Amino acid sequence: MPQLRQDIVTGKWVIIATERARRPHSFSETKRIVSKKRTTCPFCYGNEYMTPLEVLAFRDNGEPNSSGWKVRVVPNKFPALIPEGKPELIKNGIYFTMNGVGAHEVVIHSPNHDLLLPLMNEKQIELVLKAYLIRYKELSEDPNIKFIHIIINHGKEAGASLDHPHSQLFGLPIVPNFVLDELDGAKRYFDKFKKCVFCEIIKKELQDGKRIIEETDKFIAFEPFASKLPFETLIIPKKHMESFSDMGENDLVDCSKIIRNTMKKIYDGLNDPPLNYWLHSTPLRNNHEHYHWHFEIIPKLTTTGGFELGTGTIINTTLPEECAKYLRNFNK
Amino acid sequence: MPQLRQDIVTGKWVIIATERARRPHSFSETKRIVSKKRTTCPFCYGNEYMTPLEVLAFRDNGEPNSSGWKVRVVPNKFPALIPEGKPELIKNGIYFTMNGVGAHEVVIHSPNHDLLLPLMNEKQIELVLKAYLIRYKELSEDPNIKFIHIIINHGKEAGASLDHPHSQLFGLPIVPNFVLDELDGAKRYFDKFKKCVFCEIIKKELQDGKRIIEETDKFIAFEPFASKLPFETLIIPKKHMESFSDMGENDLVDCSKIIRNTMKKIYDGLNDPPLNYWLHSTPLRNNHEHYHWHFEIIPKLTTTGGFELGTGTIINTTLPEECAKYLRNFNK
Repeated sequence: MPQLRQDIVTGKWVIIATERARRPHSFSETKRIVSKKRTTCPFCYGNEYMTPLEVLAFRDNGEPNSSGWKVRVVPNKFPALIPEGKPELIKNGIYFTMNGVGAHEVVIHSPNHDLLLPLMNEKQIELVLKAYLIRYKELSEDPNIKFIHIIINHGKEAGASLDHPHSQLFGLPIVPNFVLDELDGAKRYFDKFKKCVFCEIIKKELQDGKRIIEETDKFIAFEPFASKLPFETLIIPKKHMESFSDMGENDLVDCSKIIRNTMKKIYDGLNDPPLNYWLHSTPLRNNHEHYHWHFEIIPKLTTTGGFELGTGTIINTTLPEECAKYLRNFNK
Repeated sequence: MPQLRQDIVTGKWVIIATERARRPHSFSETKRIVSKKRTTCPFCYGNEYMTPLEVLAFRDNGEPNSSGWKVRVVPNKFPALIPEGKPELIKNGIYFTMNGVGAHEVVIHSPNHDLLLPLMNEKQIELVLKAYLIRYKELSEDPNIKFIHIIINHGKEAGASLDHPHSQLFGLPIVPNFVLDELDGAKRYFDKFKKCVFCEIIKKELQDGKRIIEETDKFIAFEPFASKLPFETLIIPKKHMESFSDMGENDLVDCSKIIRNTMKKIYDGLNDPPLNYWLHSTPLRNNHEHYHWHFEIIPKLTTTGGFELGTGTIINTTLPEECAKYLRNFNK
């Protein structure tokens, strides 16, 4: 089963996913081609038998695990975490490991093999977000899961291994490092100023305007002041909202709109770039009233080197104000 | 001039390197080819005029900035940080910036355009390390510089923009995030156990043996227990040594040997992979007796996706014990 190992120096956890394992010698060989044809794509109609049994699907009629669905959620066939066992600490001399307990699911965006998210209509994106919400809430009931992470990897350069548009949903037995960093920082700010730092950022960005890309009734999309990478984009609800699961029906409709419009600008402006997109929401069950959920999108346009890998500090070669200005000009 | 911007949530700094800037629209175009021919390579003999004036060179005779050198150090032509001005905090509403003050230099490993580090003889690697040491010590005198970072990016996929083998040396006005994480963790361990955590790791790795790749009189090379990526490798002095600049002449000779042998195994075993390599040493001027300098090498074999980018937690698909066993078997 997959295992987590703790870096004894920093305390950071690494997931060693043996179910997804590659043998060492395979790295010296030419890389496999990952694109699949429709007839062999496990996410296309008629191929439902190729995936593990679905945990959720939206369909007007028809049997579970048959065709006719609009959005379908299945466990990952090669999971990084599995929903069996207990996430207990195991001592190995000075080192610690933990069983890789959790969840790893796939949200198939639509039956259409080629329909990218920025080209979908808002109704279909609403269904995708609704699937996120339902699975988020269901997995929140699992006491072994502390944090839920949802991602899209689009394009091989961004880590995608299947073409058919889909999201991945992880239920983690730990709160990951970058979320801890944000939680700690937001807590420091809250303790000092008695305000949510994200609410303060939203206010400042709406005032300045120059880093904004899109605005709807309930959300803004903008390039952060300290953008780590070119065209890094945040989508955040204007209203203070700790968890993704706090979204109501109206929020969800508005969220679908801003996701579609923002992704379309990136698609048009950057010529359908490979990209990564993820959700940052509050850890489960604990109160973090100083936190404020959001989506982050980063197109894969640059190569990180030893400076970034070694320092965790990034050299960005563009000004976020210029990136935002460039994207604002692309029509919907 | 380059500027640093602080992430208001996490406190992390980002370098916005306007001197290396790309215009937003350039990202939608095809990427430029980075390989250069010898006649136009600024790091080959006869082309010394193409670089800024050298700050160090080893040559038996001849004028500065002429041919005949064995190792040459020059300022980077498109620096991420520049040695002018003061690194003062500048307030911008709720946000903070800092001038990009520091150093960004290039260490050209040899006049040979194609001679990779793992194929060099140990004497030449000694000269490269000697150049690191001299520049490290000289830049340590600059009160604006808090931390010195040295890297090699080998191969386009690892972020290299010039073929001719070279290292880059950065003098930073901040201590970068990943080093702060290591310092904090090492401090916690020291406070708890009154021992250097790195010395403990070395003891454990020598006992276990199964993650060791190379051992010399004074150094070991091994795959960390919680390796973030396949074939992540640490090279570390067995003796407790806080700073890279604490190395004596004998240490340097031994260090050249283990760097060469380890890099050769990676070169042979993984078919000359693109890779990143960097130095982690203690921040300048402050005492960090619980820290222990080391080199890290990470071959670029996988693509990180939204899980890694969003969480800072990495899914590694190989066991470090298997990677070490595989590399150990390659002869020198």
